[in-house]
Amino acid sequence: MSTPARGSRGRPRLEQTNRRIVQAAVELLREGGPVVVNIDSVAARSGAARTTIYRRYRSRAELMTAVLHELVTAPLPAPELSVAEKLRWVLEQVSDVLDHGLGRGGVAAVLADSDPEFTLALRTRIADQLHSLTDMMAADITTGHLATHVDPDTLVSLLFGAYLAEVLRFGTPRTGWADRTADLLLIAIAPVPND
Amino acid sequence: MSTPARGSRGRPRLEQTNRRIVQAAVELLREGGPVVVNIDSVAARSGAARTTIYRRYRSRAELMTAVLHELVTAPLPAPELSVAEKLRWVLEQVSDVLDHGLGRGGVAAVLADSDPEFTLALRTRIADQLHSLTDMMAADITTGHLATHVDPDTLVSLLFGAYLAEVLRFGTPRTGWADRTADLLLIAIAPVPND
Repeated sequence: MSTPARGSRGRPRLEQTNRRIVQAAVELLREGGPVVVNIDSVAARSGAARTTIYRRYRSRAELMTAVLHELVTAPLPAPELSVAEKLRWVLEQVSDVLDHGLGRGGVAAVLADSDPEFTLALRTRIADQLHSLTDMMAADITTGHLATHVDPDTLVSLLFGAYLAEVLRFGTPRTGWADRTADLLLIAIAPVPND
Repeated sequence: MSTPARGSRGRPRLEQTNRRIVQAAVELLREGGPVVVNIDSVAARSGAARTTIYRRYRSRAELMTAVLHELVTAPLPAPELSVAEKLRWVLEQVSDVLDHGLGRGGVAAVLADSDPEFTLALRTRIADQLHSLTDMMAADITTGHLATHVDPDTLVSLLFGAYLAEVLRFGTPRTGWADRTADLLLIAIAPVPND
């Protein structure tokens, strides 16, 4: 970002403007889905000038990427946790990101592909986040905490999908769904004696 | 249905009208989602009079139920199949019903709960279909083909969700996703020697 900051308070003000822009886009997305998010609507909501927005995000696609960076962020579980604890942690993160971050409207928009630019940006962001997770699982295989037959990507999809199925079937996931899911999957991924 | 059939061809004609009504509703649902399906739009599309529709479906909710009965129908796998074959069969059915039957727009509408009446009707229909499947799994546990620790409902959710995760992540499920999913889950559900 090469925009000159004015005086000693310039940098914080720039960051404040950035936050206002992204926050406006997040609000619009949650209220009306990706189709209502564009440079004009974000300008109107945030009070920032279109040129100010374009100076930071060269296109709507770049703005979408920034929005999803904000909404779809799941830290990795601590490496010292047991595999069982990691599974439950990931299930919680999935439910948190999809429910409170992105929101179900966002998930629905991707399934229906109602806004291809948004779909692409979200899939890229999800792939990025899941990649860190599969790397961690690959490390757990190397150290013998996960069975060598485990395909991390398939396991990640199952964890991801378990939450989606619960929401599709019941709206609000049922009490204990994450424990039941983890319990069943743990049997599939526990290291076997001859590994 | 107590509507009098006229002459010897009355009954087939009644069925034909029924089909036309449900077919019109199915088309509307696929084109515009559940919000565009109502008695008026179905009357306009099918050419059937509103009174004719109301004679068969007392409410929009009843019509929705009939539509979903048409779209979300997955027969059970043959009981003599192996557990591995059954898993793959169910994964195929899930993908077929959600993609070609209901369509992703329908799935998205339920996730976003954009039409509560439709959401309820679909959840009821899915519960009904999955119930037959969990019953079959319970029987497989009794006969020793599935481990006694398996919770059929959790397994069904994992099968259901695996497809949803694949679609959310990649749009078109990747080649081999069903095999990889079945392979991992089979390890979790195989009967253990001391069962």
